[in-house]
Amino acid sequence: MAKTNPGRFFEDYQLGEVIDHAVPRTLSGGERALYHALYPARHALASSDEFARACGLPAAPLDDLVTFHTVFGKTVPDISLNAVANLGYAEGRFLQPVYPGDTLHSQSQVIGLKQNSNGKSGVVYVRTTGRNQRGEAVLEYVRWVMVRKKDLDAPAPDTFVPELKPVLAPFDLAVPEGLDFTGYDVALAGEPHRLGDYEVGETIDHVDGCTIEEAEHMMATRLWQNTAKVHFDATFREDGKRLIYGGHVISMARALSFNGLANAQMIVGLNGGAHANPCYAGDTVKAWSEVLDTAETSAPGVGAIRLRLVATRGGAPFQLRGDDGKYLPDVLLDLDYWALMPT
Amino acid sequence: MAKTNPGRFFEDYQLGEVIDHAVPRTLSGGERALYHALYPARHALASSDEFARACGLPAAPLDDLVTFHTVFGKTVPDISLNAVANLGYAEGRFLQPVYPGDTLHSQSQVIGLKQNSNGKSGVVYVRTTGRNQRGEAVLEYVRWVMVRKKDLDAPAPDTFVPELKPVLAPFDLAVPEGLDFTGYDVALAGEPHRLGDYEVGETIDHVDGCTIEEAEHMMATRLWQNTAKVHFDATFREDGKRLIYGGHVISMARALSFNGLANAQMIVGLNGGAHANPCYAGDTVKAWSEVLDTAETSAPGVGAIRLRLVATRGGAPFQLRGDDGKYLPDVLLDLDYWALMPT
Amino acid sequence: MAKTNPGRFFEDYQLGEVIDHAVPRTLSGGERALYHALYPARHALASSDEFARACGLPAAPLDDLVTFHTVFGKTVPDISLNAVANLGYAEGRFLQPVYPGDTLHSQSQVIGLKQNSNGKSGVVYVRTTGRNQRGEAVLEYVRWVMVRKKDLDAPAPDTFVPELKPVLAPFDLAVPEGLDFTGYDVALAGEPHRLGDYEVGETIDHVDGCTIEEAEHMMATRLWQNTAKVHFDATFREDGKRLIYGGHVISMARALSFNGLANAQMIVGLNGGAHANPCYAGDTVKAWSEVLDTAETSAPGVGAIRLRLVATRGGAPFQLRGDDGKYLPDVLLDLDYWALMPT
Repeated sequence: MAKTNPGRFFEDYQLGEVIDHAVPRTLSGGERALYHALYPARHALASSDEFARACGLPAAPLDDLVTFHTVFGKTVPDISLNAVANLGYAEGRFLQPVYPGDTLHSQSQVIGLKQNSNGKSGVVYVRTTGRNQRGEAVLEYVRWVMVRKKDLDAPAPDTFVPELKPVLAPFDLAVPEGLDFTGYDVALAGEPHRLGDYEVGETIDHVDGCTIEEAEHMMATRLWQNTAKVHFDATFREDGKRLIYGGHVISMARALSFNGLANAQMIVGLNGGAHANPCYAGDTVKAWSEVLDTAETSAPGVGAIRLRLVATRGGAPFQLRGDDGKYLPDVLLDLDYWALMPT
Repeated sequence: MAKTNPGRFFEDYQLGEVIDHAVPRTLSGGERALYHALYPARHALASSDEFARACGLPAAPLDDLVTFHTVFGKTVPDISLNAVANLGYAEGRFLQPVYPGDTLHSQSQVIGLKQNSNGKSGVVYVRTTGRNQRGEAVLEYVRWVMVRKKDLDAPAPDTFVPELKPVLAPFDLAVPEGLDFTGYDVALAGEPHRLGDYEVGETIDHVDGCTIEEAEHMMATRLWQNTAKVHFDATFREDGKRLIYGGHVISMARALSFNGLANAQMIVGLNGGAHANPCYAGDTVKAWSEVLDTAETSAPGVGAIRLRLVATRGGAPFQLRGDDGKYLPDVLLDLDYWALMPT
Repeated sequence: MAKTNPGRFFEDYQLGEVIDHAVPRTLSGGERALYHALYPARHALASSDEFARACGLPAAPLDDLVTFHTVFGKTVPDISLNAVANLGYAEGRFLQPVYPGDTLHSQSQVIGLKQNSNGKSGVVYVRTTGRNQRGEAVLEYVRWVMVRKKDLDAPAPDTFVPELKPVLAPFDLAVPEGLDFTGYDVALAGEPHRLGDYEVGETIDHVDGCTIEEAEHMMATRLWQNTAKVHFDATFREDGKRLIYGGHVISMARALSFNGLANAQMIVGLNGGAHANPCYAGDTVKAWSEVLDTAETSAPGVGAIRLRLVATRGGAPFQLRGDDGKYLPDVLLDLDYWALMPT
């Protein structure tokens, strides 16, 4: 029996099955520093203990995407080692901030299976939950991936496609306990714009750009203990290119969006997302956003803003799809999320 | 109204105006580790809690240049986003060590304005103060930059050029409270040379060199939340080059100067500095120093040494200017600073 | 007198001499985060405080190789600055885990000297001990290097070649106090294979690969305050190549070996090692292992496994030497070590 992990194939998943993912991870100020070194991240709440305390939190939480990447990375050996494509995200809820010293682990449940008509692959839907050392859920999200079959003769499972919310409702969002934006300091945060200053349909070109290097995306992806070969091994693909982890593009775009959305402080909901085109080293990532919705929350001074975040490879802002309905070749990411913002 | 920060133009500054810079930042052991990964930093006081305690400090402070870069980085969106050139530094005083767990923010006052005769730009002088979470000043320095005008018809302000000390006097220097070098261990520090072993006029070739990579200078510059496009976006300049943040060269040269100046433990004064020529990835940075002065301080066993630190792109040591009085093309940095050294 | 460190030459070493290496170093969560960013490290004991506590330790120790690199790096200015070659390691014993907050320093004793017959160089054997802030030894190992003579007329020392154990016996290994694998959770650790599942002679292809970038190996090597020019200065060698620190290859291979040896949790003994061929940026490092021995320890549930770890530049697994008995050109590292594993 081979000792190495071959990954799972489509026929290895059972509907309802629960998978405990290996290698829990304790996070520290080191991960925060690296996050700031890898991305131009400046949201004040994740940057300053003092700012966070003035907003009712015990200290600055780690960037919400540190939580996402850490929880996600653990699932790779069990879910996407043999994935052909990462098809989508839905119902992502950030349930609780994560602080330096917390230890995260991940668990996934198979909530849907659908073999493709070609019989060679199928779509696996999992709901993944990240928990801290107290067993409290910090994040849950649904992801579906296309996975190869190994044994083409294995019988197709009963098809079950879960019903997923296209968008989380504001009351689905978990606002961190104690969060209070009534004394929010817009000068320290970097921009004066509050929730009322944004209109649904408004678009924002985030102006800045970052050209990505191989060393950076590999360091980021290893940091989350994501093990997919294709990100690290230049001999793996025939063209000698290393595919950049989609989450690296998410973090880069989110950090770039500070310029224009400095007060969109915490990501609390992930409605959906598509990695429209692959990203490679040498690409210059730029970003633009569109305001999709705004809402109130029950926390004092805290509103919610729903945003489309688009990362491009230097493409013109506000262009998303061609006449054929397909993403334009310069579009890397189309993400739909909820963030918290002072009212 | 555009939501993104266009930066300020020359006509936007008022003499005497105070600008609070955004995004306070909590530093940790993570920033220290990254500083050691990015630069060959080995000064014992910033490397070892035990060494620092034996010198009367509560723990190893972060490298003084971590303080400088963090305080400086916060000023970029308000001071130098539209700068044509960073013209100089003066009266830089490190007032207190910064430790992991401290949160820094920055404030600048406009202390001088002078429109250029071409009417298209002007020089802005600011005195920047970095403070910790207790409101205590940890660093102050003067910097002047040339900034473009946006509205060429805006009236020129009254010219005011502040009088700045060409060199800080020894009594201007703040020695950290409790610092005591009477039990200083030169063996642990790495070199036997004490203040009395250095002569004014002496020059030291620091011998070592580091070839700089794009990933490194971008990680460093992002770590300090410095947002100037020109460092990150290879499509920004016509030649496709990313200009390396001048502070990256300062830190590289200072770290290289360990070899010959291992006991110049803490930077306490920045008398002046010029980024003589731009630095790009692929350049191999080398450094040499000249002893400009020595002095006593009131702290036990603690002297001060004034040094010229020159970084080159592999140029011959001890060459600074050509016959025309201009910096030689291989000179990257000419820095004049005070450091503390055991007597 | 030049202020910079010229390094020692062969004639500068005396048998029995003890050298205190400079610049003690306090480690933190920052070094752990960077280790995870630089290598695909996933062993659960060094990743999760909770996992480590369930195994009887107070918290997750730093990866054993962080200890090795930190202790080793300090010796470079005194031992290998003028080394022509790093010839071997022996009797490496990890005596105690190192935790964030610990401060390490290093000391070496010259235990052997042998001038080469050409009279131009000689072999220096040192036993290096790393100690924490309490003076407790955390690591000791023997290393021998070939060092140039500066003064070819200096008399040859009496030849003394120390007798070194080719392999540490199981009773030589120090198991961390309190370590208890009776409740070891293989699911969280990532693989089901326990000591009894491995057979002596068994070989494992670790499958994954990482293509190395200049920025990565330089950041790693600086992080350990290793100052050897050849790793950093592209102008130092005529071919413009920067030689990768051998320890970078050790860490890369060990991290890759997770896939198949996830439960080989802690390195406790280093029997020997050879850097078979130089490694350069652009090389894709792969790894394979061979089980050399297994043993019991006195700690509950804790066994020991002796492994050969081979790193290659993408060479076929399980090929080590050619017909001439020399290492194949694609072999980078041949390491012989003991690790602890649940029984």
